[in-house]
Amino acid sequence: MEMLDYIRQRRAVRRYKDAVPEEGYIEKILEAGRWAPSGLNNQPWRFLVIKDKERKAAISKFTKYAKIIESAPVLVIVCMDVADSYNRDKDLMAIGACIQNILLEAHSLDMGACWLGEILNNKGRLSKYLGLDDDFEIMAVLAVGFSDEELTEGCRKPLMKLMIKADEN
Amino acid sequence: MEMLDYIRQRRAVRRYKDAVPEEGYIEKILEAGRWAPSGLNNQPWRFLVIKDKERKAAISKFTKYAKIIESAPVLVIVCMDVADSYNRDKDLMAIGACIQNILLEAHSLDMGACWLGEILNNKGRLSKYLGLDDDFEIMAVLAVGFSDEELTEGCRKPLMKLMIKADEN
Repeated sequence: MEMLDYIRQRRAVRRYKDAVPEEGYIEKILEAGRWAPSGLNNQPWRFLVIKDKERKAAISKFTKYAKIIESAPVLVIVCMDVADSYNRDKDLMAIGACIQNILLEAHSLDMGACWLGEILNNKGRLSKYLGLDDDFEIMAVLAVGFSDEELTEGCRKPLMKLMIKADEN
Repeated sequence: MEMLDYIRQRRAVRRYKDAVPEEGYIEKILEAGRWAPSGLNNQPWRFLVIKDKERKAAISKFTKYAKIIESAPVLVIVCMDVADSYNRDKDLMAIGACIQNILLEAHSLDMGACWLGEILNNKGRLSKYLGLDDDFEIMAVLAVGFSDEELTEGCRKPLMKLMIKADEN
């Protein structure tokens, strides 16, 4: 399959099969994240993997998307190491690139994933629950597993609407 | 080639051949960007494509990496549409995901690209030069073309150093 097909066919998956992906699968998606580009190659991303059901249940309390968290066999919590941060805007974009690598690699391995951002409304409480060091700021929770839903159609603005027509362009 | 190989083999390219990529190539990389995920699917990314040599020369004045800009046959200026922004942190991450899609698609088409962030030090002046509407905030300049350099070895922190060991993990 071509890169563009992978990119276009990737979807957020919100319901998962019970099967827990093998450790090699999780290692591969994190490996993909590891190779993202970052400003000055500072690599500000850090990962916390959670599979334990009780911990997942506790984490699900911090978001209105509790069902996705409870359904997913694996959670990858992506943090920024603020001690390694040099420019917040650039570091946030780098972490976005890292997350996209993870999502694409999961898709290419026939897994599904969901990038959860709403949980950041409670990131302080979640961080406390996880016992995170002050240096780690939670950026996203990724639900990961094997999809148990029908493939949905994606929806994006047409390219024409994304093009800027500035002076002389 | 597998997704993980594409991800691991992609490199920043800083010197380009003179050949200008066909319009179809540029459309494909922007199409890849268009399919990035974003919070509430708000798709805050906007693109401005510049090929004109004089304009490239003028833009090169805003960064110490002038040579990369002058060497690249195509520039893609990625902006955030702040009118469509709902959460700056999440929108920055979404734009990072969008840029990574563009870089990966360029690599898969045997093109090279370089994500330039240092130019943001002069983003106000660059924005004025480009005649951008106030709603468009410059996030990155991507140099794009066919690589004229040897493939370099990448360097990343080992995965072990990226894993958070929080309580009970």
